[in-house]
Amino acid sequence: MFIIVTYDVDVKRIDKVRKTLRKYLNWVQNSVFEGEISISNLAKCKAELEKIIEENDSIYFYELKSPYAVTKTVIGEDKNVTDNFL
Amino acid sequence: MFIIVTYDVDVKRIDKVRKTLRKYLNWVQNSVFEGEISISNLAKCKAELEKIIEENDSIYFYELKSPYAVTKTVIGEDKNVTDNFL
Repeated sequence: MFIIVTYDVDVKRIDKVRKTLRKYLNWVQNSVFEGEISISNLAKCKAELEKIIEENDSIYFYELKSPYAVTKTVIGEDKNVTDNFL
Repeated sequence: MFIIVTYDVDVKRIDKVRKTLRKYLNWVQNSVFEGEISISNLAKCKAELEKIIEENDSIYFYELKSPYAVTKTVIGEDKNVTDNFL
């Protein structure tokens, strides 16, 4: 499935959350990851994140049945952060 | 259509971007808005934002043909910021 993950977490935990998400998805904007993921990997990813986050942290998973169900348009810069680190 | 908007903009312009988005959508996480929007309102919203943002700012619009095409799950807190200001 295609997924969009957004997060608002305490600065102390951001690196850990990003490191976890980068194992499974592409970092496309400051607090946004995207990509194809299997149901089992999504479950693993969520379980890992559950161990990291604490009170007031927030992570949203927008799960799309297929990448064709969404059209993405960009205003300004397409950050696609992952590219900058490869 | 249902839409998810994420943004990464310079701190100087964040309030203006949020004020514009709040006219059309619900503020659901630090840099995420969501909601139903008509094609004409989406065009208006984008045009307004184009006038605000500058170099290095980034706004993504994930346009979904229907709200049923996406399943949203939350880990941690469901921030739904808009509620806090109503």
